[in-house]
Amino acid sequence: MRPDPSAVRTVVCAGTGVIGGGWVAYFLARGYDVVAWDPAAGAEERLRHLVDAAWPALTELGLAEGADRSRLTFEPDLARACARADFVQESAPEDLDLKRRLLADIDAATPAGVVVSSSTSGYPMTDMQTECATPGRTVVGHPFNPPYLIPLVEVVGGKLTDDDVVAWASDFFRLAGKSVITMEHEVPGFIANRLQEALWREALHMVASGEATVEQIDLSITDGPGLRWPIHGPMMTFHLAGGQGGMAHMLDHFGPSLLAPWTRLTAPELTTGLRDAVVEGCEREAEGRTIDDLVAERDRGVIAVLRALGRA
Amino acid sequence: MRPDPSAVRTVVCAGTGVIGGGWVAYFLARGYDVVAWDPAAGAEERLRHLVDAAWPALTELGLAEGADRSRLTFEPDLARACARADFVQESAPEDLDLKRRLLADIDAATPAGVVVSSSTSGYPMTDMQTECATPGRTVVGHPFNPPYLIPLVEVVGGKLTDDDVVAWASDFFRLAGKSVITMEHEVPGFIANRLQEALWREALHMVASGEATVEQIDLSITDGPGLRWPIHGPMMTFHLAGGQGGMAHMLDHFGPSLLAPWTRLTAPELTTGLRDAVVEGCEREAEGRTIDDLVAERDRGVIAVLRALGRA
Repeated sequence: MRPDPSAVRTVVCAGTGVIGGGWVAYFLARGYDVVAWDPAAGAEERLRHLVDAAWPALTELGLAEGADRSRLTFEPDLARACARADFVQESAPEDLDLKRRLLADIDAATPAGVVVSSSTSGYPMTDMQTECATPGRTVVGHPFNPPYLIPLVEVVGGKLTDDDVVAWASDFFRLAGKSVITMEHEVPGFIANRLQEALWREALHMVASGEATVEQIDLSITDGPGLRWPIHGPMMTFHLAGGQGGMAHMLDHFGPSLLAPWTRLTAPELTTGLRDAVVEGCEREAEGRTIDDLVAERDRGVIAVLRALGRA
Repeated sequence: MRPDPSAVRTVVCAGTGVIGGGWVAYFLARGYDVVAWDPAAGAEERLRHLVDAAWPALTELGLAEGADRSRLTFEPDLARACARADFVQESAPEDLDLKRRLLADIDAATPAGVVVSSSTSGYPMTDMQTECATPGRTVVGHPFNPPYLIPLVEVVGGKLTDDDVVAWASDFFRLAGKSVITMEHEVPGFIANRLQEALWREALHMVASGEATVEQIDLSITDGPGLRWPIHGPMMTFHLAGGQGGMAHMLDHFGPSLLAPWTRLTAPELTTGLRDAVVEGCEREAEGRTIDDLVAERDRGVIAVLRALGRA
């Protein structure tokens, strides 16, 4: 009933602000026909400005065969737009009622079986699919700004989402060139936003209390841990902070400092179960790379990043 | 009484684990004589392994004139090591009592006026300088792992630190090639560690509760927000998430979602004062760059990072 993910030709983008417009640019660059809809005054003009601004970057990265900005159609009527969809990506403002109604309208106008994905930054699909006649085809496909450059998409279904839709969306995004995390559980904010929101909230607290300025906060990241994070995530980073003993050494010896007042977020209790889950996760992720291998990989990466940004 | 920061020839590194050893490699590469001390069994051998492992990276980045690994001396006697210092960097394990005693011993053995800096990841110098006979010369100079590649050093004094020592240490680290944040206030964990600890703690909570695996957490950063953070910190990142309206639009329109349960850390109240401090900080930091300028800068940066890491 659903088209094969590789058979998708036309993507409908509903909502074309910073995120939705970024999706439009991305899907155009990957060689899709894109039908865009947005009810805001001046939306089409802003969208074309955004696509034009993104196009040099996308061209430099390499366009798919046949990719062309002329394959963008702006359609003022939502039902007419959706009627053409092989896949729908919704990127409306973060307003739960609005998204509920819009997803129901999209669902009513989109051919049976076609998957409808939402860019929501944090609402569980369970809370958004409530008004849909066929909620089984709705799924979260959460991108990062700008969607035309950042590879990550987090895919997760709601209670009424069909199992095969989560798999279908994951396959489709991967075919379209994205890096996909398929989540087993609905978590408000998904994964990356929970992590970056914790950092952002701590930063806001620090500004509010006069502990740091906006500029100090940004510099502390761009010239500090931010240089490691494109290479190794927070877990692998601390795996290396433990020296040759890795994460096991780190948790067994520095566990007590987990409780130090280094952030306003209270640390979880470091149970044996949590300790083992983190250590074993790092070992799985390392896939046989030794600490020396990972250190060399990080060093090559940081040097490459510094050089690429003209800072070495 | 103090040597001019540019007159420093010999750096003493007390404690040569992952951080202290990284400092040794860095100072050698910048052309200093380094005297290293560490009481642990096998410390010298581990240090030489670490310096050798770091040297190819440091060579690739460009060694200072005269830089040579043969200018490293391992000195088993702390007092003899300190007697030679133009500058001391202490990198002992994170144990407050140990650091108090060690800083007092260093202070007793180091020529008058020479600045003594601590790599502590979070203790305020006020709490560490209590046993020193001349605490005025002690200061925090907090690096990031690996200190031989990550530019950031956070400099902050304690209650008994002389004002000129904070300035001296900031100047010295800058002359040695570091990116320095000079903090006005003592904050446990300083700035970057408060931020990355908030993220790390949220990650531990997610593993503990089964919301995400170690691998998903790392991938969500390396393929998501981590690609932006070497270019723009968290504040500038959200300045761009607001579209042409920037941070002001972002806070005025998305302020309510600040309260959404997207992380375990509660958000601060978005008072007018906080709103204005963040908006004005972003405008100062942007230094006249428009949103379009910043978007283009981010895009060039993300592309350069993806390419440098072989991912585009």
